[in-house]
Amino acid sequence: MIGATVRSGLRPSQRIFQRPLIQPQISRIRLYSTDQPPHAKVRRSIFHRSLTVAKYTGYAGLSAIFGLFVLGAGILAHDAFTYNDRHVERVPINPLALHPERGGPKNLPVVKVQVDDEDDEEMKRLAEKPRLVIIGGGWGAMGVLQTLYPGHYHVTVVSAETFTTFTPLLPSAAVGTVQVRSLIEPLRKIVARLRGHFVAGKAVDISMADRLLEVEIVNTRGVKERVYVPYDKLVIAVGSTSSTHGVPGLEHCFQLKTIADAQQIRRRIMDNFELASLPTTCAEERERLLSFVVCGGGPTGVETAAEIYDFCQEDIMNYFPKACRADVSIHVIQSREHILNTYSEAISKYAEAKFERDGVHLITNARVSAVTPNHVIYTVRKEDGTIEQHSIPTNFTLWSTGIAMNPFAKRLTDLLPNQVHRKAIEVDAHLRVKGAPLGDIYAIGDCATIETAIVPHFMELVDEADKDKNGKIDFTEWEVMVEGIKKKIPMASNHISKVRELFELYDTDADNSLSLNELVRLLEDLGNKITALPATAQVASQQGKYIGRNLNKLSRQQAGLEARGLSDVQEHKATDSAPFIYHHLGMLAYIGNAAVFDIGDFAFTGGLAAMYAWRSIYWNEQVSARTRALLMIDWIIRGVWGRDLSRL
Amino acid sequence: MIGATVRSGLRPSQRIFQRPLIQPQISRIRLYSTDQPPHAKVRRSIFHRSLTVAKYTGYAGLSAIFGLFVLGAGILAHDAFTYNDRHVERVPINPLALHPERGGPKNLPVVKVQVDDEDDEEMKRLAEKPRLVIIGGGWGAMGVLQTLYPGHYHVTVVSAETFTTFTPLLPSAAVGTVQVRSLIEPLRKIVARLRGHFVAGKAVDISMADRLLEVEIVNTRGVKERVYVPYDKLVIAVGSTSSTHGVPGLEHCFQLKTIADAQQIRRRIMDNFELASLPTTCAEERERLLSFVVCGGGPTGVETAAEIYDFCQEDIMNYFPKACRADVSIHVIQSREHILNTYSEAISKYAEAKFERDGVHLITNARVSAVTPNHVIYTVRKEDGTIEQHSIPTNFTLWSTGIAMNPFAKRLTDLLPNQVHRKAIEVDAHLRVKGAPLGDIYAIGDCATIETAIVPHFMELVDEADKDKNGKIDFTEWEVMVEGIKKKIPMASNHISKVRELFELYDTDADNSLSLNELVRLLEDLGNKITALPATAQVASQQGKYIGRNLNKLSRQQAGLEARGLSDVQEHKATDSAPFIYHHLGMLAYIGNAAVFDIGDFAFTGGLAAMYAWRSIYWNEQVSARTRALLMIDWIIRGVWGRDLSRL
Repeated sequence: MIGATVRSGLRPSQRIFQRPLIQPQISRIRLYSTDQPPHAKVRRSIFHRSLTVAKYTGYAGLSAIFGLFVLGAGILAHDAFTYNDRHVERVPINPLALHPERGGPKNLPVVKVQVDDEDDEEMKRLAEKPRLVIIGGGWGAMGVLQTLYPGHYHVTVVSAETFTTFTPLLPSAAVGTVQVRSLIEPLRKIVARLRGHFVAGKAVDISMADRLLEVEIVNTRGVKERVYVPYDKLVIAVGSTSSTHGVPGLEHCFQLKTIADAQQIRRRIMDNFELASLPTTCAEERERLLSFVVCGGGPTGVETAAEIYDFCQEDIMNYFPKACRADVSIHVIQSREHILNTYSEAISKYAEAKFERDGVHLITNARVSAVTPNHVIYTVRKEDGTIEQHSIPTNFTLWSTGIAMNPFAKRLTDLLPNQVHRKAIEVDAHLRVKGAPLGDIYAIGDCATIETAIVPHFMELVDEADKDKNGKIDFTEWEVMVEGIKKKIPMASNHISKVRELFELYDTDADNSLSLNELVRLLEDLGNKITALPATAQVASQQGKYIGRNLNKLSRQQAGLEARGLSDVQEHKATDSAPFIYHHLGMLAYIGNAAVFDIGDFAFTGGLAAMYAWRSIYWNEQVSARTRALLMIDWIIRGVWGRDLSRL
Repeated sequence: MIGATVRSGLRPSQRIFQRPLIQPQISRIRLYSTDQPPHAKVRRSIFHRSLTVAKYTGYAGLSAIFGLFVLGAGILAHDAFTYNDRHVERVPINPLALHPERGGPKNLPVVKVQVDDEDDEEMKRLAEKPRLVIIGGGWGAMGVLQTLYPGHYHVTVVSAETFTTFTPLLPSAAVGTVQVRSLIEPLRKIVARLRGHFVAGKAVDISMADRLLEVEIVNTRGVKERVYVPYDKLVIAVGSTSSTHGVPGLEHCFQLKTIADAQQIRRRIMDNFELASLPTTCAEERERLLSFVVCGGGPTGVETAAEIYDFCQEDIMNYFPKACRADVSIHVIQSREHILNTYSEAISKYAEAKFERDGVHLITNARVSAVTPNHVIYTVRKEDGTIEQHSIPTNFTLWSTGIAMNPFAKRLTDLLPNQVHRKAIEVDAHLRVKGAPLGDIYAIGDCATIETAIVPHFMELVDEADKDKNGKIDFTEWEVMVEGIKKKIPMASNHISKVRELFELYDTDADNSLSLNELVRLLEDLGNKITALPATAQVASQQGKYIGRNLNKLSRQQAGLEARGLSDVQEHKATDSAPFIYHHLGMLAYIGNAAVFDIGDFAFTGGLAAMYAWRSIYWNEQVSARTRALLMIDWIIRGVWGRDLSRL
């Protein structure tokens, strides 16, 4: 029977559905044979029990079908109402929206009025509110947009992509475990809650003195045009690009940061398999085509390698020539000693053991020195210190090692003299961009880093703490200063919890007070101990929500101030009270039918159960019910029919 | 309340879910007021009845949830089994598969052995069977592949696209009502049932004497290579391209024949709306961007226009500036007097009235004379015979008027001297390509046309019928000839049903017999009356199934002949008994929340109900349960959350 199903070309997974039809019969024949073995009774009860189970499963199935039918009817009835014959009359458009005035340092059109600012009464009222401009449509921007109350700001989102992407599942989308459309939600639908505006463009420059953001728009003839979008508050959430580490040939690599990347990767993977099965492809070329190289052993790299492995095991195996499956090789090149090195050690070990078992080739302590169209060349540092050079023939290289600054972030830091960080925009504890007009510009997510150096605040801290102005800090004054430090650099809190020990450690002359020299040394060491927040979705999302809450608070305060006839000069004082604090909720990663979690002090690794936990966590994080439903459907579809093998 | 929901940015369709929460309360207040109106009792019973309905809906909902839960658990349990740790050992590959011998007229590699021919015992046995090569992956190819019994042929499918497409829903996919991935099924999964092979390449030439098909393959370096794929039976199902009618500028038009076309159209539509909402776009340009022109009033053109209209009404309306919705214009340019002119008149009228109501601009009796990047220029013939020239500014033009020959079909007809048809390969009543070695090559679908001329068979028919060899056909002989005609040109059957009338009509000298001159005139007139089969999915599918059944029969006969030690010289006689007969099952089209059917003599037009009927017919036609599930899900998702607005 099984031979027959194989012959008829069914996927082995489909056979499961056929079994119940045949097996009960067979068991009955065995059960009632004349020479019953001693354990027949036990078997029989198992048989009966399974009959009962089957009966109830049947009931469940029936009620499922009935329920689904009713549900379906309801949905179709609802469907009928979504078709409509509404007609739109010509709407009034402010002439300024059609022919914007020019201005600003570069004399570009200034978008003071949007096309839809006079669409209805609500829009007209919002047009009077402070202009909040958000650059980017990722996790940070989502955090802000989902936290803001409607009605308080004239919101404009500027982003080249018209949708927000659920980035953690991009590796899944890259092999088709989930569809790309299940990971995205149109930004227009999200801004609609705030009756905000969306501009499909790229922020390229800024004039902070005039509060004008310069946006590049590709017009209908494909020509790039620039306009100014005025702002009162600006939130920069532009994300980051991949770090090149100065490696030549990265143009031959894929990245995995956007939906377009995932689509390209999927196409290339299918291309490689189709080419490998062509009659003209020689054995050597087939091996090169089916060699997948991932540079970087962080979560993205590891998950992509795991997804490619899954895809080969579950789908390629069933429908491509066996030679294709046999020739597949997956390589992960990691510069550190372990993969997933930001996770706990148990997790790294688990992932490495899993890859070892699956035959995924792990190359640690290695540096990629060049990428060519056909090879990845890397060097490995041996334990005796010698360096060996290797090369892997490949037609697929993923580059996912670290982040670098986005061009707009770079431009902004160039404009501000006190921005010296190489990889991100430095912000203060309230996520306000350092050096920009206070309270005007915020930066969040991958493009921002919260300052960790305390020394620049030295004079201020001393001024505040040194009550007797004797140029020395005694222990009481030190306690005051500790509070000041915690406020300014909240991330230092963990490192100055032992107030007395720290004081005594740095009071080298033991005069029961810290001289300014001793203090500088203390603050320097302290600053060095603080590690920056990782560039993760979690951090960006929390920062976005923080900004959203602050903006809500601000608009309430503003309303109060206006009621009392006051202006907003003191706004930055008002929000000074609560700096941003990051709450680490754990990390997770998918490693081929298994998942790993690192939640606080608790690390958890495991197989299918963990994978489902991993899925459910991501499922909860979705921005909309739509993507949640789509994701669930994708997972079910994959379970039942496997991944789509079409090269699209 | 409704004002509030609108303000909070919900789509109007979502409001439906909120109503039941509020309305029963309101009705109760009205119902129990002191001055009950006379019809209060009726209202009350409606209220109670609706409560009962609500109760049962609640039960249904609960059982749905329970059922779904059990279903979900089952699927997840099943899911667990789809992950596997199977490993593939190096498989033996025939050296001939790796280094194919060269041969044929152009001395190219001949793929005698495929890479997976020795994957297992079944494959090895199939490698000995007659080689059936199918070119194309559309409706015709599907018909063959789904009808063939496994185990009788060594099947190879040659197609540049790796999947088959459900073409009738391409207009839906072009605006995102359904997802493109829901319309496709990988060819590898379909060939898997027959343990066949798939070659991702394009047929470019053929050597009929050597039975070698020349296939162009794009190799790993993007270079085009050619190989010979040997065949014993060849089925040509390459489809058609769009007819240009010699109009200049068609490179600025979209077509809608493939998934890639649908994706490009969707991108362009979203592009147009995004560009139209940009602050830099002037009013004139916005109108051009939002003007959609469809050239061709056949089903594809009409359905695409209807889908674009739906998309604007249901999705654009809710999330784009009102100015965008107000400026949308949709134009359909048709060369005939009516759209859907192959359908019954009632249907054309209904569709035209619907478009009229929706404000879709219908331009009939018009010819497109040129397309520029920004305009469509067309001429209209007035009733008084004068010709007017008009032009519509647009950024989207769809070209869907008629079909033309695919390059491979062209090449084949050039090789065969008796192939004179301009638009397709001429085949006989058994779909065998005219002039090719008999029984070797079949052509089906859009690329083929069944011969309708009877005169070329004149001598044969007379020989067969003129028993007394007197050079005249009397009525008894005429009856024999009619049977002969029905066999050779089955499509003539309807036109020669009145045997006696026809005989008397053409027996001009009333000598109770037809002279050869009279006969030629009769057969000529008869041939002209027969109309060729339309280039539809239905015809292609039926032809494919016919070929599949014939090939099955042939392989059984072959096995019988071999058992009796005979060769296959007589095979074309064996299948001569039953020519292909087309059974018209009706035509249908979607026209914006409404559908039209033309089933035999019965024409049916209507709104939502017809639309659901339309959906269910297409749903039944799906090639796999997977695409069926995906389509249903797409329709539900659209009903609940609308179409995705992301520009991807």
